[in-house]
Amino acid sequence: MPRLLLTPGPVAIPDFVMDALRKPVIYHRTEEFEHFYASFLVQLRALFQTEQRVCSLLGSGTAGVEAAMYSTFHKGERVLVLENGKFSKRWTDYAGLIGLEVIPLRLPWGKSFAPTTILDALERNPGISGIVLTHCETSTGVCLDLEEIAFAVKRHHPHILLLVDAITTLGAIPFYFDAWQIDLAVLASQKALMSPAGLVAFACSELALEKMHPTHKSDYFNLYNYLKAAESFSVPYTPPVQILYAVQAALTHILEIGLPRHWNQVHRLSRLFKDGIQKLGGEIFGESPSDSLTAFGFEATDLLKLKHELIQQYDIHLSGGQDELEGKILRVSHMGYLTEADMKRTLEAIEKILM
Amino acid sequence: MPRLLLTPGPVAIPDFVMDALRKPVIYHRTEEFEHFYASFLVQLRALFQTEQRVCSLLGSGTAGVEAAMYSTFHKGERVLVLENGKFSKRWTDYAGLIGLEVIPLRLPWGKSFAPTTILDALERNPGISGIVLTHCETSTGVCLDLEEIAFAVKRHHPHILLLVDAITTLGAIPFYFDAWQIDLAVLASQKALMSPAGLVAFACSELALEKMHPTHKSDYFNLYNYLKAAESFSVPYTPPVQILYAVQAALTHILEIGLPRHWNQVHRLSRLFKDGIQKLGGEIFGESPSDSLTAFGFEATDLLKLKHELIQQYDIHLSGGQDELEGKILRVSHMGYLTEADMKRTLEAIEKILM
Repeated sequence: MPRLLLTPGPVAIPDFVMDALRKPVIYHRTEEFEHFYASFLVQLRALFQTEQRVCSLLGSGTAGVEAAMYSTFHKGERVLVLENGKFSKRWTDYAGLIGLEVIPLRLPWGKSFAPTTILDALERNPGISGIVLTHCETSTGVCLDLEEIAFAVKRHHPHILLLVDAITTLGAIPFYFDAWQIDLAVLASQKALMSPAGLVAFACSELALEKMHPTHKSDYFNLYNYLKAAESFSVPYTPPVQILYAVQAALTHILEIGLPRHWNQVHRLSRLFKDGIQKLGGEIFGESPSDSLTAFGFEATDLLKLKHELIQQYDIHLSGGQDELEGKILRVSHMGYLTEADMKRTLEAIEKILM
Repeated sequence: MPRLLLTPGPVAIPDFVMDALRKPVIYHRTEEFEHFYASFLVQLRALFQTEQRVCSLLGSGTAGVEAAMYSTFHKGERVLVLENGKFSKRWTDYAGLIGLEVIPLRLPWGKSFAPTTILDALERNPGISGIVLTHCETSTGVCLDLEEIAFAVKRHHPHILLLVDAITTLGAIPFYFDAWQIDLAVLASQKALMSPAGLVAFACSELALEKMHPTHKSDYFNLYNYLKAAESFSVPYTPPVQILYAVQAALTHILEIGLPRHWNQVHRLSRLFKDGIQKLGGEIFGESPSDSLTAFGFEATDLLKLKHELIQQYDIHLSGGQDELEGKILRVSHMGYLTEADMKRTLEAIEKILM
């Protein structure tokens, strides 16, 4: 059996995406590039479900969220950061680092945020100008009900800016940037876009753009530069052309299937795997688990050993828990180029090892 | 004739580097990755000619130099920035943006810096703790005599930190990080390493490391995080694994040839092309032109038209001048997977168009 990569980023990449990596390199200060990038931005808009501004940046997911926060919020601003896992904790730390007045709203890892909890926090802390939300915590698999949260927040506080880390959701589960009134959302190529790591992309509302400022040309993290350059289908700095080609191939594939059908496909893999784990006596970790990945455990089982044996005996590679969840959960991606057979193969392998 | 990409980044990429892009993706939190990255760091050390610390980051050249400055210099520090072109001007701007007390040492585009000019500036401006140098200005082709400059500075001011943008030199022309006593140097994958854009790499002295500080985990531009992670052959954030594979293939190729022989090969292409341009009545732009690229012009010739006809008639793609040099020079790379035949083909095409 071939190697099966089930880590929740990087993910299994299809051959047609790998092939696109090999397309001839082009110089980015040309009409040829602008022509390509114009069509790429159209695809990005379709993915984000937006008619507003989009752009991309060469970097990892961390770079993407940091750039979003850095570009949008300014020293001393009050920002509410929802923290319920490893990655959302990063955004709290970074907000402090760039001098924001951070109001962290903390829940134990594995818990989800109800809209009322957020509205209460906004009431208790007047003057908050933005909220940083992690749609799905890759470290726990917990997925916020972003539609509900955004609806509640925007209804009572239309001027509070919603900045969403959608790294582990965009492309995998329903996401409607315009309809939900999100202001700034970030995705990364190596997750639901089933591409190599290297690219992050953004959608941006007028409200978010108004908060950004032009600076000198040299300011890699200033999204204003990217959004302005995108108006003429250009980029401020050298783009990762080969990665752009790969992401283009993935986007073409996903959009040809159609987003709702594609989301449904991810959902079916998730359902199949979660049901299978429960049938084997396992437990799904956390509240409102995402379809992007499954975080799970088995009582009285050495999970690190299980993970190791899956690699050794079956060439199946999944992730363990991180930081405080090390040894307590395993994580399997439903993002990437995966089939129901891959999920069944994994469940069967787990069953055999547990027997 | 096949398309010939002669822009000074991105450059012509060989097939064996493109092939490496397609290697199976691996998860970076594994021994498999650490094993790979350990050998990659060994190759990087050989390239930088250093036995000190090295690391890599997912980003463009701009990201690399910004990260180097951000990690090393702190608010209010006095820093001398040598500025003689588009890219070195960026570093002046960025230094101001992060709150450094910038002393820009400016020369007209096309001029080079003599060691005495720099020593004079250090004397006139006491308390300078670092110098930012652009080894070769990609916008003009001007190459500093880094060995001489570093020798002069370190002899009189051993504690002044030398931060070198070596993006358009490292891998193309002689560079000795340890012997020249450089403190922090930056390279980018899409230049002399004949690879796709996406990776920047650094060598770092003890002096530079002492000036860096740990911060929260979330701080994408803090090289301290990367250098510390590299001690255990790891990276703090998702790395561009496919690009790393490509750069590994290029490094293996260059190191197998041997650095001095490889530098000599670039030198021969540069000599051949520069001689050819002069024979055609053209002029090489600027003082102390680099072997990495040739910036040149022809009097009373519409250079933008020449550039356009090279594309239209011969599928040869080179760069024009940027900003104030637009229409005044053309630029041809000697970095990348190029042969003497490629240089001759370009000279012949230019000759035919000019006739």
